[in-house]
Amino acid sequence: MKNLLILLLLIALGKANAQENLNFGRQKEVVSPQVNPDGTVIFRMKAPGAKRVQVQGDFLPRSGSADMKMDADSIWSYTSAVLPSELYSYSFVVDGLKVRDPNNVYLIRDVASVVNVLLIGNGKADNYKVQEVPHGTVAKRWYSSAELKINRRMTVYTPPGYEQSKEKYPVLYLLHGMGGDEEAWPALGRATQILDNLIAQGKAKPMIVVMTNGNVSQEAAPGESSKGFYKPGMMLPNTMDGRMEETFPEVIKFIESNYRVNARKDQRAIAGLSMGGYHSLHISRFYPQTFDYIGLFSPAVMADGRHKSKVYANFEESLKVQKNNGYKLYWIAIGKTDFLYKNVADYRAKLDQIGMKYTYRETEGGHTWSNWRDYLSEFAPLLFK
Amino acid sequence: MKNLLILLLLIALGKANAQENLNFGRQKEVVSPQVNPDGTVIFRMKAPGAKRVQVQGDFLPRSGSADMKMDADSIWSYTSAVLPSELYSYSFVVDGLKVRDPNNVYLIRDVASVVNVLLIGNGKADNYKVQEVPHGTVAKRWYSSAELKINRRMTVYTPPGYEQSKEKYPVLYLLHGMGGDEEAWPALGRATQILDNLIAQGKAKPMIVVMTNGNVSQEAAPGESSKGFYKPGMMLPNTMDGRMEETFPEVIKFIESNYRVNARKDQRAIAGLSMGGYHSLHISRFYPQTFDYIGLFSPAVMADGRHKSKVYANFEESLKVQKNNGYKLYWIAIGKTDFLYKNVADYRAKLDQIGMKYTYRETEGGHTWSNWRDYLSEFAPLLFK
Repeated sequence: MKNLLILLLLIALGKANAQENLNFGRQKEVVSPQVNPDGTVIFRMKAPGAKRVQVQGDFLPRSGSADMKMDADSIWSYTSAVLPSELYSYSFVVDGLKVRDPNNVYLIRDVASVVNVLLIGNGKADNYKVQEVPHGTVAKRWYSSAELKINRRMTVYTPPGYEQSKEKYPVLYLLHGMGGDEEAWPALGRATQILDNLIAQGKAKPMIVVMTNGNVSQEAAPGESSKGFYKPGMMLPNTMDGRMEETFPEVIKFIESNYRVNARKDQRAIAGLSMGGYHSLHISRFYPQTFDYIGLFSPAVMADGRHKSKVYANFEESLKVQKNNGYKLYWIAIGKTDFLYKNVADYRAKLDQIGMKYTYRETEGGHTWSNWRDYLSEFAPLLFK
Repeated sequence: MKNLLILLLLIALGKANAQENLNFGRQKEVVSPQVNPDGTVIFRMKAPGAKRVQVQGDFLPRSGSADMKMDADSIWSYTSAVLPSELYSYSFVVDGLKVRDPNNVYLIRDVASVVNVLLIGNGKADNYKVQEVPHGTVAKRWYSSAELKINRRMTVYTPPGYEQSKEKYPVLYLLHGMGGDEEAWPALGRATQILDNLIAQGKAKPMIVVMTNGNVSQEAAPGESSKGFYKPGMMLPNTMDGRMEETFPEVIKFIESNYRVNARKDQRAIAGLSMGGYHSLHISRFYPQTFDYIGLFSPAVMADGRHKSKVYANFEESLKVQKNNGYKLYWIAIGKTDFLYKNVADYRAKLDQIGMKYTYRETEGGHTWSNWRDYLSEFAPLLFK
């Protein structure tokens, strides 16, 4: 009777949604992606009527596409080359139409795109995996912004043992880029897995990681605010005009009055990618007694003081104040083919000119999440030592 | 210069993923779904080469499909009837191939299927929306199961004000069905939005809601455990053999030693859907001094004692113990067309026979999330009064 009931349950649930992917031995099960032990991947898709099916993704040279081949069961497939360890994204293209892999439930949203992901281990991406190690708590938490007059959402990672401990913890404020939000670092950046793993390996100190929403006009990520379900866009008002930096002390105050933290400069770090690097640069400079650790990942450096905000006034003078106050780490990383490479080189020249010390990390690649995950993995172990 | 930089940023990011959905005025923007003020919805998809495009979803009679029509720009569209307020799911079918709506980033996974969702407000689904009200914190938290010998993940909702308060809160343990996990109630069930809204309206008491993973062989939801990215399945070992019930006191103990709660029977509720209703029935009966509030939503009732587990022994006797101990609410809900309707009717007959009081709620519809969201919305206001 139990088996009958379970079968009924399966059928009842299957009726709504599951027949696409669940089957009862009637059909050949389509597995896709199949990550092989040698690091190759087989992509598969059943598409009986299609004339041409391709796979497209960042595992292919120049994020290009490759033709798949159809077998007698109308299953199209493609086997990749041996791939280096990484979190990859991909789509299928069926007769010109871009579609997701119907057999892969793992998807990540990047602005207005949703792409399938797969992970190749046995290398650096092992740090992006959930491993059998103690896990921190990941909370979606709201704070009330008196200055912005809205309730706003952030993602807060507290390290394993935080709740049972009586200790005070250091805090890393980790900022996203344009088009991102408080879900970017947890999803695309695998930040919570990276921290769990670095802490378990003894490479990083247990720390709180605060992933804010850097778009001051937004309550929360698309779909998570009172705006409801709408199509996300890249361009949002007030992202780089000083409002984010002006109101950032509210975030620090919220964290320091709601978590067991050391409210000290040597226990605070701020880092961000692209626009978040811009924010980190300006916040750490404008509040020069606040952060001992600064990380600029492929930062959008624009030191031209076009905006009226007081944040951007007296740029060079305030940098010197930051320099004279002292700090423990000013870490800049960028890829050789990043379109911001020259801006960053110019900024380094300025830092050299005023004698402001920094650590510079130049990598392969461009303006990519692959690099930002690497940068976080390298930066976090340098903090609070 | 700022505009140029932003354009460069857009292009750089667009190169990887965004060209699919971002455009710069070159093409007609496709908006889908477009929810109109009158409650109709326009679905759209650009598919130049397609011969037939359909939309399929639970907003159509018998979750059927409807043909879309192509315009001169190769955009296929379909306008629905006026739809009652609800969270709906849908897919497109292009020449026989089921695909997601490329212009809708809002997706929910149900077992191994990922479907697009849309929400029609001005009715009951307003309770499933993020509204401009105080929001609770939603945490993904891990506990160590000594009995199951794995670390396991749960979703814990703490109500608005919990962190600032010194009060002790009541707890609702909210259990998922077969194929679900600790993400089912937050995602498909919109449980955290429902609680935020009911609490803001003064209809429900502020309470902690604990959404566990009821599959005792699982650390966490698919993709969130050390098993990595794999294709989820409906059938998992040990889901209905007593292990879940036997080890449930670990969950209660973890919550009561980690949160400010009243560890009292009149401050504990347990409810679940389908298999989670089965779990709720057995847990509340097997630990008859533990819960004053019990909710069985379309429960999989199987009181035949086939399993060796001590949980299922002495079924009727232990029900009588539960009855004699007393409780405040034993709430059973089921839809008229649910395939478990007869099982539940038989169970009610047994309850009547032994004189065990319950509140019975019979609704339209079947074994659906639409009903389970309704049941939670009705059940939560009855608790801890």
